[in-house]
Amino acid sequence: MEVDIGNALGSVATPGVSRGSLERLDERVADAHERIEAGIGDREHGYAALALPETADPDAIRAAVDPIDCDTLLVVGIGGSALGAATIADALDLDIDVHTLDNVDPDHTRTLLDSLDLSRTALHVVSRSGTTAETLANFLVAREAMESAGVDWTERTLVTTGEEGNLRGLAERHDLPALDVPAGVPGRFSALSTVALPVAALGGGDVEGLLAGAGAEAEGLTGSLFESPAYAYGATTYALAQRGWRVNAMMPYAESLETFAEWFAQLWAESLGKEGVGQLPARALGATDQHSQLQLYRAGPRDAMVSLVRPRERGDVSIPETDLEGLSYLGGSSLGELLDAEFEATEASLAAAGRPNVRVEIDRVDAHELGGLLYGMEAACVLAGELYLVPTFTQPAVEWGKRAARGLLGGGEFEEAAAVEEKERLVVD
Amino acid sequence: MEVDIGNALGSVATPGVSRGSLERLDERVADAHERIEAGIGDREHGYAALALPETADPDAIRAAVDPIDCDTLLVVGIGGSALGAATIADALDLDIDVHTLDNVDPDHTRTLLDSLDLSRTALHVVSRSGTTAETLANFLVAREAMESAGVDWTERTLVTTGEEGNLRGLAERHDLPALDVPAGVPGRFSALSTVALPVAALGGGDVEGLLAGAGAEAEGLTGSLFESPAYAYGATTYALAQRGWRVNAMMPYAESLETFAEWFAQLWAESLGKEGVGQLPARALGATDQHSQLQLYRAGPRDAMVSLVRPRERGDVSIPETDLEGLSYLGGSSLGELLDAEFEATEASLAAAGRPNVRVEIDRVDAHELGGLLYGMEAACVLAGELYLVPTFTQPAVEWGKRAARGLLGGGEFEEAAAVEEKERLVVD
Repeated sequence: MEVDIGNALGSVATPGVSRGSLERLDERVADAHERIEAGIGDREHGYAALALPETADPDAIRAAVDPIDCDTLLVVGIGGSALGAATIADALDLDIDVHTLDNVDPDHTRTLLDSLDLSRTALHVVSRSGTTAETLANFLVAREAMESAGVDWTERTLVTTGEEGNLRGLAERHDLPALDVPAGVPGRFSALSTVALPVAALGGGDVEGLLAGAGAEAEGLTGSLFESPAYAYGATTYALAQRGWRVNAMMPYAESLETFAEWFAQLWAESLGKEGVGQLPARALGATDQHSQLQLYRAGPRDAMVSLVRPRERGDVSIPETDLEGLSYLGGSSLGELLDAEFEATEASLAAAGRPNVRVEIDRVDAHELGGLLYGMEAACVLAGELYLVPTFTQPAVEWGKRAARGLLGGGEFEEAAAVEEKERLVVD
Repeated sequence: MEVDIGNALGSVATPGVSRGSLERLDERVADAHERIEAGIGDREHGYAALALPETADPDAIRAAVDPIDCDTLLVVGIGGSALGAATIADALDLDIDVHTLDNVDPDHTRTLLDSLDLSRTALHVVSRSGTTAETLANFLVAREAMESAGVDWTERTLVTTGEEGNLRGLAERHDLPALDVPAGVPGRFSALSTVALPVAALGGGDVEGLLAGAGAEAEGLTGSLFESPAYAYGATTYALAQRGWRVNAMMPYAESLETFAEWFAQLWAESLGKEGVGQLPARALGATDQHSQLQLYRAGPRDAMVSLVRPRERGDVSIPETDLEGLSYLGGSSLGELLDAEFEATEASLAAAGRPNVRVEIDRVDAHELGGLLYGMEAACVLAGELYLVPTFTQPAVEWGKRAARGLLGGGEFEEAAAVEEKERLVVD
């Protein structure tokens, strides 16, 4: 990926980052890079994710999916166990349909299961612990649906899980293909692993290309933000957040990258949002959200920077000539030219209002470039975590609610469940 | 809808809103209500949207769609011309498939058009001016695709537009069914009008129910936030924003309301985000985003309040009994019970961390309740606009970019297009 931080500079944004500040920040980047390199080398928890271009094993993934014959894949997971697969499926042109069960909305689960030909559907159940409530509940429901339809679920279920636990035991009992969640790789950093790559392998996607693209991005990680696109992104967004730009609107100009923005939102929020710091990721889509969010980004509170992402090449569609009044300028042009004009116009519009924005470009939306984009954003996030001085790879604030929910459902005694009962109320109806 | 602002109070949130402050704010609400009532009565620009439960004409909408026979509806519009229809289509159980062309991504437009049986597809083209570049470009492309497929587009195209302009002229020349965009109703406030109700009418949805639900919400607008759920929402979110909670994460616990959160995001951002004020709407989805955004909402910067929306009733799916270790508490429960437990746990988890949140409940996701929810949020937004002292019904910051894009495409001389060429660059690759 290529990153252009020109519109984050103090000559454009108010407040922006001066070149002098960037140079001083680059010293911290160099220190952080040493820490990151060491962590990668030692396969330390979290940092190990940045070693995946080397450590992931495409052959093992292909071998695991090989026995499975399907037209549709249903990924059963939540958070990092679903978003990587969904991102890859929506970006690449796979030859299977892919759906995710990453919520426990009964209407949705029922409607989705009813709509599928289960005899041609595979399940990929993903949970490191094997006890994630949402994932296991959905698996139990999906398995029962297959049984009711007379489909042998053991022939079409793949599992990615830890070395021990429920799902591991299940796989052993039923001789299911099972992949290991790689050691030291948190869910939100697992897109380039056994967690999300099976969707590409099953769908005829270029698994090696994804890893090669990630590897090329890894090669580019030097100790300077002026040389490493990933670090340029991580350091600049950090510097902007310090200057009050505490929202980061991730706005790809490609429908196929809409889910990438969701994946990014988890990566950014859960890794950096702790101890009172971090940057809130807002998910947007160009050009659509120019008619929705742009008014606020340009003229609302001075707290939202915008990340504009685009592929340099894409397919195109000509706009037919027309005699409709005032529209002749469109005829003979193309949807792609219109989209590019809107991208540049939005970028300039934000800059003209002194609102910082960062341009991220990839050559095209294919496996190689997507791999690079995912890896680059992960490296950017790890760098940002070093700069913010937060524990990037934990998510402690999620645990309280999990205990409360479990207690409410009778899964044990938890004081958090009692707190739910004491809710303060001021009801207006 | 019912609104519970208990968790926004100072006894829970830090900082929160004291009851005394709410009482003083209620005096401003009373004044704003008088202004709003007058605006509705006089059908003033913008305020006229809140008269739609009375002024919309379901029979005219039914008559317009009556000649059209289709299995699939393709809504061609952008921003407020698409989001209302998409929200209704995703929330209600319609008997047609609905897609939107609300972007100009060529790959997406081509893939979508190629996937449809155009001989069974209707177009609903929506643009007040008849010159919206994205909408007209997509219409020209879709029309050509129909012609290439030997399909008579004039038999299956419905138009909603202003009294004059391109689309009006087109409708007259080809004798297309055409509906008027109601006077004084901005796009983002047009869900309950000829802009979005045709999708319900075509799909066998309960148009009258949508309007009746909105009407019931309108009846409930009194001069006090303690009596009007819509005003409780608008006033409380305003008071929270004044106290630093400048992000409003809209988090419905229902997949069918995911698009509602997008609709809300446009309403909130474009109406209130101006003159340096407003509140950034972040789109979230429960329970999924508990595994993505919740860490940041609970432990990141103290600037994000959360709006938790749920239907009180829904269909349900039992979770099969299981002998999987540690999961027996799930067996015999249901997905709906799990989802409700997670809703309450998330709410309590945020409260325990002093993070304000507001609960919005509707009886169920049906036409009546959806109509009430849409109307309620519109009224909340209009009230908030009065409190922020902003021009709620304009979107001036969007115009700069439109001129720049038009200039870039050769649609006239605009100085904004020249500014695009002068972009500051600092490229890292």
